[in-house]
Formats: sequence, C-alpha cells, structure tokens
Amino acid sequence: MDNFVYNIPTIAYFGKGQINVLGETIKTHDGSKVLLAYGGGSIKRNGIYDATLEQLRKADLEHVELSGIKPNPRIESVQEGINLYRENNCDFILAVGGGSTLDACKAIAAGVKYDGPVTDLFVNESGVSDIAAAAPLATILTMAGTGSELDMGAVITVGEDHKKKVLMHPLLNPKFSILDPEYTYTVPEHHSMAGVADILCHLMEQYFTPEVHNTKVQDRMNEGVMKVVIEDAPKILADPQDYDARANIMWASSMALAGFQFMLGKPGFPFPLHGMGHELSSMYDMTHGHTLALLTPSWMRYTLLTAPEHLPVFARFARNVMDVQEADDAKAAEAGIKKLEVFYASIKMPASLRDADVKQEDLEVMAEKAVERGNLGILTSIGKEDALQIMEDAF
Amino acid sequence: MDNFVYNIPTIAYFGKGQINVLGETIKTHDGSKVLLAYGGGSIKRNGIYDATLEQLRKADLEHVELSGIKPNPRIESVQEGINLYRENNCDFILAVGGGSTLDACKAIAAGVKYDGPVTDLFVNESGVSDIAAAAPLATILTMAGTGSELDMGAVITVGEDHKKKVLMHPLLNPKFSILDPEYTYTVPEHHSMAGVADILCHLMEQYFTPEVHNTKVQDRMNEGVMKVVIEDAPKILADPQDYDARANIMWASSMALAGFQFMLGKPGFPFPLHGMGHELSSMYDMTHGHTLALLTPSWMRYTLLTAPEHLPVFARFARNVMDVQEADDAKAAEAGIKKLEVFYASIKMPASLRDADVKQEDLEVMAEKAVERGNLGILTSIGKEDALQIMEDAF
Repeated sequence: MDNFVYNIPTIAYFGKGQINVLGETIKTHDGSKVLLAYGGGSIKRNGIYDATLEQLRKADLEHVELSGIKPNPRIESVQEGINLYRENNCDFILAVGGGSTLDACKAIAAGVKYDGPVTDLFVNESGVSDIAAAAPLATILTMAGTGSELDMGAVITVGEDHKKKVLMHPLLNPKFSILDPEYTYTVPEHHSMAGVADILCHLMEQYFTPEVHNTKVQDRMNEGVMKVVIEDAPKILADPQDYDARANIMWASSMALAGFQFMLGKPGFPFPLHGMGHELSSMYDMTHGHTLALLTPSWMRYTLLTAPEHLPVFARFARNVMDVQEADDAKAAEAGIKKLEVFYASIKMPASLRDADVKQEDLEVMAEKAVERGNLGILTSIGKEDALQIMEDAF
Repeated sequence: MDNFVYNIPTIAYFGKGQINVLGETIKTHDGSKVLLAYGGGSIKRNGIYDATLEQLRKADLEHVELSGIKPNPRIESVQEGINLYRENNCDFILAVGGGSTLDACKAIAAGVKYDGPVTDLFVNESGVSDIAAAAPLATILTMAGTGSELDMGAVITVGEDHKKKVLMHPLLNPKFSILDPEYTYTVPEHHSMAGVADILCHLMEQYFTPEVHNTKVQDRMNEGVMKVVIEDAPKILADPQDYDARANIMWASSMALAGFQFMLGKPGFPFPLHGMGHELSSMYDMTHGHTLALLTPSWMRYTLLTAPEHLPVFARFARNVMDVQEADDAKAAEAGIKKLEVFYASIKMPASLRDADVKQEDLEVMAEKAVERGNLGILTSIGKEDALQIMEDAF
C-alpha cells in the first residue's frame, strides 16, 4: 500500500429537513452575505428555492443570486459568479443544485481569492491546482451523481471547443453539504439514472488498479458501495419517491468521492473513462453519465485483451460485485461484464455510441483529444489508438 | 435511514516515514510547546521515541513529557497531564502510543480547557460530553485496535472500583494522526491480536442493528472492512513484519470508528459488548480485546434466542462476512457464529471466561454494573438477567 493522506474536510448533514441547519451553519463560518447560485430554475418549481430563501431570511443573511448555470458548466458562468461575488462584497457561496452548479461554485470560490484569471488555477502536472485561498462554500444537493458535494474537484468547460478542465484542491471541499434525499424525488428518470452511472464509474475507476497495491480495506469498502448502487438504482426507477433507495444512492454518491477514499494507497490519479467521456460530452453535449456507461464495458474488454495479467482484478469484480459464481477467472470476468451491461440496460442507458447519435467519423478526433489530457491508464497506458479502439468497440 | 451528521475532522497521514510531517504540521496548528505523552516506555526500545524527539527538535518545538500511562488509563494520569500542561504553558498535546495513551490525552485536551474537575465532562444522557473547547491534539499510533486515532471518544478508568467512563465530543478528534504500519511491527502477538478483536467488535456493534434502518451503504462498507480484518489478522501472526497486513489492519482500525461512519443513519449509540467487556476489564484488568472476543459469540446466540426476528441480520453477517454458503437462515447464522469462534481461536483469544481466570461468583456483580451504564441493547434491550446469562454462556 502506498503512503497517503486521508482528509475529508466537508461536514455532511444528511436526511429529511436538514436544510434547517443552513442559516446557523453559514454563520459559524462567518457568512453574512451569500452568493446563492443555481441552475435552470427547477429548484423554483420543486420548492427548494423557497425553502432556501426562508432559511437565509430566518438567519438574517443577505444574498445575491447567480442563476442559469448549465450542465457541463462553462467558464463564463464562473466569471459571472466571481464578478457578482466581488461587486456585492459577498463572503459566502451557497450552491443549490447538482454537480454542475457545485463545480461552478468551487471555481468561483477559488477565483474570488485569486487576482489573475481563474483559468490559471486548472490542475498542473502534479494533478492539483495551485490555490492558496478559497471563499467558504456550502452546497444543497438536488441530484446524486457527481460526488462534488464531498470532494475537492471541479470540472469546468472552457473555450470554443468545449474543453473540460479540472480544478482540484482540498480548499475547494465544501465547508458543509446538505444532503436531503427528498430533494431528489423530482429529478427526471433520465438524469437520476445518468447520476447512477456516474457514481458507479467513480467507484470502478478507483477500483480497477493493479492488485499488487494491496489496498484491501479501500477495495472491499468500494465493492460494498458498488453493490448497493446496483441493487437500489432500479428501485428508484420503480418508485422515484422510495426514500431509502434515494438515500442509499445519495450516500453512495458522496462516499464514492469523499476524500477520494477508495483511491488512497494507490499511485496516480487516472480516470480513463472520465477522460474519454468528457470528449463525448464536449462534442455532443451528451449527458456525462451516459458517456461513461457507453464506454465502460468496451474499456473493460479492451483492457483484458491488451493487459491479460490484470484478469484477477476483473474476476474479483465479477464475483464480489456482480455476484458471478464461476471458478474460472476468464469466464467470471466476461460474465461480470455481461451482467454490468444488463444492469446498464436496466437503468436505460443507451446501448451504443451509434444509438446515442455519435458520428463514427468523429471518434478519431475525440480519441486524440482524450489522450491530450495526459495518462488515461490505470491498468494499462492508453494512447490514441487504444482510445479509438475502445470508442470503436462501443460504437 | 435516520438523519445523521457525517464529520471526520482528523487528517490521517498514513504510511512509512510519515512522522516526517510531524513538526511542521504541529506548527500549522500553532503549537510551540508540546506535552508529549506515552505509556510504558516501549517507544524508547523500538526507536519511535527518538524519532519523535528528532522531529520536534528539527521544528524547534519545545516539549515536556508525561510518561507511564497504563492500559485502561486512569483519571490520575489524566490529572497529572492536565497539571503538567498548565504548569509548563503547553499549547499542543502529542500522544504517542496505543488507545490508552490516546484516550488519556483526549481527556487531558478537554480538561486543560475546563475550570472544574475533568470528571464533570463524562458523557451525559444524550451520549455526548458538554465540552466547549479542547487543546489541539495529534497522535502517533503504535498499536492498531481502539480506533481512537480517528474518533471523538475516550474511555477513562475512575475510582477505587475501576469504573470505566466515557468522554465523547467532536472537539476531541485529533487534529491529525500519524499512522505508520511499521510502528506496529514490535507489538507483541498477544496485544496485536487483542487489537484485532477490538476492531472487529467495533465493526460488529455498528453492524448488528435492526434491518429496517436500511443503511445499506454503511453496512456493505462495514462488511468489507470485517472481511479484511478476518483475512489479514492471521498474516500478522505468521509474520509480524508483513507490511501490507499491518497496513490493512491499521487502516481497518481507523475506518471502523472514523466519524462512527458505519453507525450513521441508525438510532442510538449502544455498544453492548463494550458495556459488558469494560466490567471484565475493570474487575480483572483483563485485556480489552479479550473481553470482547469472549462475550461476542454468547451475545449472538443469546440475541438469536430472545429476539429471533433479527435472524436475517445474523444470516446476512454469516453469508457476507463469514462466507457461509447456506440457504437456510437459521443454519447460516449458526454456521457464521461457529466460523467466528474458529477465527477467534486462530488468533489465540481465550476460549471461555473460565480459561481467562474469571470467577463465576463475580459474574452477577459485573452484570449488574454493566447494565448501570444504561441501555446496552442494539437488537434487544439487555437487562441484568440478560447480561448475566450472556456471561454465564461465555463462562
């Protein structure tokens, strides 16, 4: 096991009605004027906006609003937020929404404490951002998936070519996050299930690493969370107001990335599926979770083909997570991948890139851009030809 | 799932040589004069004392020493530490040792910021201590087991009758803990395995709760940690310097109680086995982990007998943790308990209270004292007669 630092600076208030702690908890972080940020306005229809305002009022907290943060949030929204925060002398940021709103607010939190352009703060070669200070941030989560509510990362879209860039620093962890599973009741099925695919991918990307690292505690905990995701996602499809299923999926989302706890003790920080998936989102504005579900089985089979020495990890996944009963490793691994495909189909993920209206002639440029992000490999190194082959297999 | 607050304020520096961060990290918490506390002096024989002093010197940190903290640490040691800290105008506490030294230091941290007697700070009816401030504390762990390195609790022995009392407050979480698995290489087999029994008990006490709470993420993660403990403990017996096994057991110890994360979403805070076990330690100064291993199988069988409605939880434990392959719940549960007994025997726990030189005539008074601690039940309420029966079964 490699050395590591375990650090989870975010406090989570989990459960029904936890919004009641909002005002007082902002005050414990010396907040008095809040930049309240949200997305497309669904929080106005489902009552979360009103509930938030009521809490701010009760605590005598002023606020200004940044609305209209879009999925795959853009740097322009971040800059707008930075300007609003400064012009209004805010001292606290409250993100109400899903991962996109949260990520935009993390970038705002870093940007308002930095004199230069916020784009300077994207991660450097060592995988972290050079951030010396950040405004205090809290979140009210309205969609489970990205794990941004308990982690230190943010993904921001930049430029004409919709490049997805990353910020990463412990100072970007929210001070606290309010996680009320009831707030996800009205998330449309499509987005709820894309969130599930995102959670599962975060778990898998931390899981599929060379067995030699011997990070058993992390891996066994990870397997447990994966099993719950696979078991409870269909319950949300059956009943979007199944509290326990919503709660389990929401907590799985948070646990998956809290302090990147399942990655600790392993070298590097590669997220191959996110690397390739971000290019699909960039070119087609495709739902993030869908891109991941589309690529994962192909990535698994390609890895097994090109790096068969890692077969034991895939066989372990099959047995411990997908409940495959099969003594032969190769057969177990393939059965595990097949069961994963069945799961993705059951939560209505698209079956192929073709089904998702991706054009085959675009694959090459996306593969090229994906590998420009740096090392995509966990078990193997993934170059352009590898990425292209994985995408072709998923087509 | 019940509402909960997830809060893990301790940062863990895990791995070989992590002591190198000691001095600078104390300084980030404004430490300049350190109360250095340790136990019986084994750290002087294995080099950890010298390594600690070297780090303090390199960082220009002064220190005063509190030595001789005993297993089942007593309030007198705590008071001595409080006096030393005050007389020397210390501003930071560094605990180097196992759970006993850590727990004593947590009580010192609370006591130095409180004007009255530290005994006022034991937990009240709501299960927490009334603590408004605590001195900053760091730990260097030399024995895996109690989980004190990442939690908010401390157990202190008080009075002529060796009563074990509890302090519990998030302010008692260490600021940081240095967890170097190599520092546990020289822990004697007896204590290493008692630590394993303690870890496993912490996990089980959080696990065996009514199934209706539906805390699946917490329970599946917990199962994963339990499996690792059972798998890797024998490796330490075979080779005390097996780094990965020591690392997995040490991280299991920390994960078991970090923010009491596997208890979140469940009502109450009952630790029945610790409740009864503490009485055995009080009366016989018996190793804490041994008392737990001795009582657990009896507690399980007694619970199944008196509250058979909880059979599914025991069957789940048997299948998911003990790898029992058995369709019938009752048979699975019993097979799981049997396998647990085999595991305890394999790590050389005493087989019965009689073997551990407990006198049968003392059981009644210990049962009586155990239930004076308040509700011992998780799955069932445990009164004096129940506690006595469990102890008789374990005799």
